Amino acid sequence: MTPSYPQPAALCRSVETQSRFNKSIISLTCALALSGLAFSSIVNAKTVHVTSPNTHINISLTDDNGRPEYQIDFNGKTVINPSKLGLVFQQLGEFGSEFTIKNVSRSSVDQTWQQPWGERENVRDHYNRIKATLSNGKLDFDIEFKAFNDGIGFRYLVPKQAGLTSTPKLDITDELTEFVIPNPQLTTAWWIPGRGWNRYEYLYRTTTLDKIDRAHTPMTFRTTDGVHMSIHEAALTDYAAMVLNQGRDGTLRADLTPWSDGIRVKTQPGFTTPWRTIQIASNATGLLNSDLILNLNEPNKLGDVSWVQPGKYVGIWWGMHLNENTWGSGPKHGATTSETKRYMDFAAQYGFDGVLVEGWNEGWDGSWFHNGDVFSFTKAYPDFDIDAISQYGKSKNVRLIGHHETSGSVTNYRNQMSNAYDLYKKHGVTQVKTGYVADGGDIKRIDENGIVRHEWHDGQFMVNEYLHSVTEAAKRGISINTHEPIKDTGLRRTYPNWIAREGARGQEFNAWGSPPNNPEHTAILPYTRMLAGPMDFTPGIFNLAPQGLDAENRVQTTLTKQLALYVVLYSPIQMAADLPRNYVQRLDAFQFIQDVPTDWSESIALAGDIGDYVAFARKQRGAEDWYLGALTDENPRKLTVKLDFLTAGQRYEAQIYRDGNNADWLTNPYDYVIETKVVSATDTLALSLASSGGSAIRFKAL
Amino acid sequence: MTPSYPQPAALCRSVETQSRFNKSIISLTCALALSGLAFSSIVNAKTVHVTSPNTHINISLTDDNGRPEYQIDFNGKTVINPSKLGLVFQQLGEFGSEFTIKNVSRSSVDQTWQQPWGERENVRDHYNRIKATLSNGKLDFDIEFKAFNDGIGFRYLVPKQAGLTSTPKLDITDELTEFVIPNPQLTTAWWIPGRGWNRYEYLYRTTTLDKIDRAHTPMTFRTTDGVHMSIHEAALTDYAAMVLNQGRDGTLRADLTPWSDGIRVKTQPGFTTPWRTIQIASNATGLLNSDLILNLNEPNKLGDVSWVQPGKYVGIWWGMHLNENTWGSGPKHGATTSETKRYMDFAAQYGFDGVLVEGWNEGWDGSWFHNGDVFSFTKAYPDFDIDAISQYGKSKNVRLIGHHETSGSVTNYRNQMSNAYDLYKKHGVTQVKTGYVADGGDIKRIDENGIVRHEWHDGQFMVNEYLHSVTEAAKRGISINTHEPIKDTGLRRTYPNWIAREGARGQEFNAWGSPPNNPEHTAILPYTRMLAGPMDFTPGIFNLAPQGLDAENRVQTTLTKQLALYVVLYSPIQMAADLPRNYVQRLDAFQFIQDVPTDWSESIALAGDIGDYVAFARKQRGAEDWYLGALTDENPRKLTVKLDFLTAGQRYEAQIYRDGNNADWLTNPYDYVIETKVVSATDTLALSLASSGGSAIRFKAL
Repeated sequence: MTPSYPQPAALCRSVETQSRFNKSIISLTCALALSGLAFSSIVNAKTVHVTSPNTHINISLTDDNGRPEYQIDFNGKTVINPSKLGLVFQQLGEFGSEFTIKNVSRSSVDQTWQQPWGERENVRDHYNRIKATLSNGKLDFDIEFKAFNDGIGFRYLVPKQAGLTSTPKLDITDELTEFVIPNPQLTTAWWIPGRGWNRYEYLYRTTTLDKIDRAHTPMTFRTTDGVHMSIHEAALTDYAAMVLNQGRDGTLRADLTPWSDGIRVKTQPGFTTPWRTIQIASNATGLLNSDLILNLNEPNKLGDVSWVQPGKYVGIWWGMHLNENTWGSGPKHGATTSETKRYMDFAAQYGFDGVLVEGWNEGWDGSWFHNGDVFSFTKAYPDFDIDAISQYGKSKNVRLIGHHETSGSVTNYRNQMSNAYDLYKKHGVTQVKTGYVADGGDIKRIDENGIVRHEWHDGQFMVNEYLHSVTEAAKRGISINTHEPIKDTGLRRTYPNWIAREGARGQEFNAWGSPPNNPEHTAILPYTRMLAGPMDFTPGIFNLAPQGLDAENRVQTTLTKQLALYVVLYSPIQMAADLPRNYVQRLDAFQFIQDVPTDWSESIALAGDIGDYVAFARKQRGAEDWYLGALTDENPRKLTVKLDFLTAGQRYEAQIYRDGNNADWLTNPYDYVIETKVVSATDTLALSLASSGGSAIRFKAL
Repeated sequence: MTPSYPQPAALCRSVETQSRFNKSIISLTCALALSGLAFSSIVNAKTVHVTSPNTHINISLTDDNGRPEYQIDFNGKTVINPSKLGLVFQQLGEFGSEFTIKNVSRSSVDQTWQQPWGERENVRDHYNRIKATLSNGKLDFDIEFKAFNDGIGFRYLVPKQAGLTSTPKLDITDELTEFVIPNPQLTTAWWIPGRGWNRYEYLYRTTTLDKIDRAHTPMTFRTTDGVHMSIHEAALTDYAAMVLNQGRDGTLRADLTPWSDGIRVKTQPGFTTPWRTIQIASNATGLLNSDLILNLNEPNKLGDVSWVQPGKYVGIWWGMHLNENTWGSGPKHGATTSETKRYMDFAAQYGFDGVLVEGWNEGWDGSWFHNGDVFSFTKAYPDFDIDAISQYGKSKNVRLIGHHETSGSVTNYRNQMSNAYDLYKKHGVTQVKTGYVADGGDIKRIDENGIVRHEWHDGQFMVNEYLHSVTEAAKRGISINTHEPIKDTGLRRTYPNWIAREGARGQEFNAWGSPPNNPEHTAILPYTRMLAGPMDFTPGIFNLAPQGLDAENRVQTTLTKQLALYVVLYSPIQMAADLPRNYVQRLDAFQFIQDVPTDWSESIALAGDIGDYVAFARKQRGAEDWYLGALTDENPRKLTVKLDFLTAGQRYEAQIYRDGNNADWLTNPYDYVIETKVVSATDTLALSLASSGGSAIRFKAL
């Protein structure tokens, strides 16, 4: 399956991109070469290849333009045209131009590792690897490629070396990595604007790829041949996030988010960049079944993480977004002792293990936005008795879930972090939701000179700051659920207490967003944001239109689509986001939220197309039950699902929560039917999804 | 005098910097070439030259490495090694690599133009020019070089062209311009840190050039051959300022200050960059006599500017820095009606035409720093009656000088600008001092989405914002004296109402700076900051040590050095910065400040070495009198000055203000002597300068 690349041909072709100056020379050398003269004696350009284990993906790395470039072919067709590689250092200039391949090492791996929690218990890590050392005669650096069946990853390594002993400090001013996409005008892309004021919280744009200006990753696109690809990165630590800039049409270039002083990355010899990843599949669901991002992260560094607990929670949260309550003190203060106990009663009665409480600490009164320095992370409001609450929680076997909103004033948070986490640990809190609400570029830090600096959420400084909070929390057996986070790049494998994040438009936009999330939003998320990792979307709103069906701000789904989200949008922690009074009115539908687990031994994407629909089946970890979630955009559709994922010979009671025959998100969202039937692996199931509707099914092993 | 560059030799030499891949080929072509084959039929690389009118400076522009590079030789020795040229666009990638010279045009100019005000009336603009069009076969851009006797300038031009019709928007992500300095470890540099929190307000560092990390321009250095050079830029409009980053030792690279979103420059096809300038002289005073920066700016765009008035002023200012007064309201409020009238009386009595008043407007109470939005530019404090004051000023023929402190909240200033300037115009104010006190990177603007953005003082946004205030003021016959400014790049030629700026450590640092300005500070400024243009340093402090000679915060000069500053540090507006009560105690010395003009028909740097000493002679515009100012660093020294700058045959009374025989800045700064003697052009004068002392002389034509 691997195309062959005769070197003289490759060289002659390659020079078409050269200046006339070089071309005229090289044409000559081609002539010499073809006339039989020993080719490499004139030109020492190299082209090396590595293919995926199934040989469907071929990566070519070449220096035949006098610099490293790569190309990717999938099933014999080029999906990434020749694209430049390299880095630029303030102290050393460019590592790229004039660097050629000095030597190459190869290896292959096929291993299976276990996730302490996740979409599946066993993850297969199967790839062929090539590591090339490039040199300009004076200095070396390495480029490492891994070819998996579900895509590729590559990264740069700048080793310590004799030539760098006099430069202990390396400042990266640019990364030259390109992703050159063929036929950009015919390629469909799903993306959000990169480096925007609202961080990652935008509705996804569906355009031809050439319309992208600057996009965050994961950036997902479909080629003219129906190949589905997504560009992202893995293991982002001590480096700036990569945003994609479009230069010439189709040429996406790495744009590292800068520090406030303009430097992109501050590092030193002996560093490794994050992996640049391209997931590749012949259909949309292929992307959903990929473990590539996790496989490119380091194994667990925290040792025994049995204290990291997946679970479900309720909380004092939605009431604030509806303006029934306030974060700040006063008559509508949500975070009171009595209200918290009421939620703990509800949680205990219906089998939730946690109660999130926001607005319990001092600082919420007045204008905290743009001024997070007002927050105390240890002083509770007088009407919030944390001792009494944690005692009460213990008696009910319900945990208090902590909350820290920094409003982007990270120095203020850093200064209080130890005391804040110690306080929570003392009260048995094992999970904290952190918040960094601030405009993009407006994270405030005090630098070493005492000067206020304004950083991006996804610059190197914050990449390190977010991870610092996770490792500090780990020392105290606390898991972190980061909101307004740095995008996920699979670090949950290395730090399993980084249990979830936000990092996209969540449920709260339905309460006050203009516009609220549209029907296709959750039909795009699985193929974009969710490829990065778990999201704390907070599904399960039952009162879909508190201000009436005609109000702009309402949930644009049917009720059963809210149930389907628990299976479709993977997270080890899931909230039942609505107010208790709305659940007790529909206990029949609420039963699914009580039953659905948040930890799985297996997950399978059954069907879907980006922005249209998606269907997942997942098997409960440590049990025989399976669950299915399916949802659609504004278009009603019928799906026929083969149940061959079920255990052969096993009978199941399918508890089906589906849209009623007259259901429609806009006019009739509460029309749902709950029915049961006995099924087995040989059966097929017809699902009928209403406009912005869904189905949620529990397959209870009999 | 011009070295010759045989092309094959040049080509063979040049390829030593190429990758092995290219080198092997080109060595072959060299062989062919030398063996007599038509050279250009194989390689179309070009090297073109342009020399200064006196032929001492030779610029080589070549594409023989397949990209544009330049080199500069001075008197036959290379002072700038081969250095890369180019720009990188988000939409188009690199303009540099793979661009070769397509054609070249040449011209020569020798003209003289007049300054409405300045160091000299007639400025000679004499250069040879070359403009090269570079092309990669698809797109073109131009590089223009001008070679003067006192240095060189070059700039990039990206014309509108067929290939760019589909890209109306061009975002510059990097500029590749290099300045490669030979022998960096043996070259002495005088510089301040680039992009620092304190803007341009640092003591200058004197190090070997290889010690520079990131420096602002003008950055001045002296080679091992004693050649004096300074890198800066001219005509900085609608572009980001250039900071110099050192990569490999000796390789200084343009680092354009970014927007808050990381883009360096937002432009469109048909743009021109500022001139990158290198002033070159065989001695230090050669730099001081250079008009290169002005010559690379556009002629006056404002038409009749007779309303732009040089002059001298006093003001309500130093008292605040000494904590005798406050900017804010209260018992110590400086800007009161009565105090302003008192200053107007003083100004009228001693021949000053302006009175600056700071702290007259609402917003100074409480914490205005980091929060300039509190400032009103039209509401005066109740104890400041602007009507009464402007009336009183008219009766005394003394102008009120306006003041606007923005604290970097430029949107707040922009919103009030029209009303603010109208108000001043109504009251006959013809000069406004603006202030932008904010940490580097902390200029606040509200963007088109209503989001607070934090910009650099020298990014493209502020470059345009500063100029906007100048052109808005011009419409009302108002001149602008910018503090915490964008660095000067000679725009006073194009906008003569941009009458002065700060942009370096001024006198106020002696009141509270830690440390205050040291004795060498004003012996470095003329060779660095002052090469850019006039500075509002505010000299003339007579009470040199209000807290005693042993206090840290005092003026580290003798009294006569304060007088010398009026001649040494050129500005069309000069303040007598001290309190009136300190002048009336020393009316004999104060006489020099009364006499010295601020507008000149000629200026000559007589002697000096960077950081050691400097002596200037200047001829009063519209009169026959000459003035001389000389000052030294901490080392006392004797200077013998030829008076041959005086008009031959004319007799002058030299009114000499000199350090006394026992004067010493540290122990005895008030020891000064005033004496007169009759001199003529054939005489020489011996000057004896004390430690951090100076001499100030008026040559009164008899």
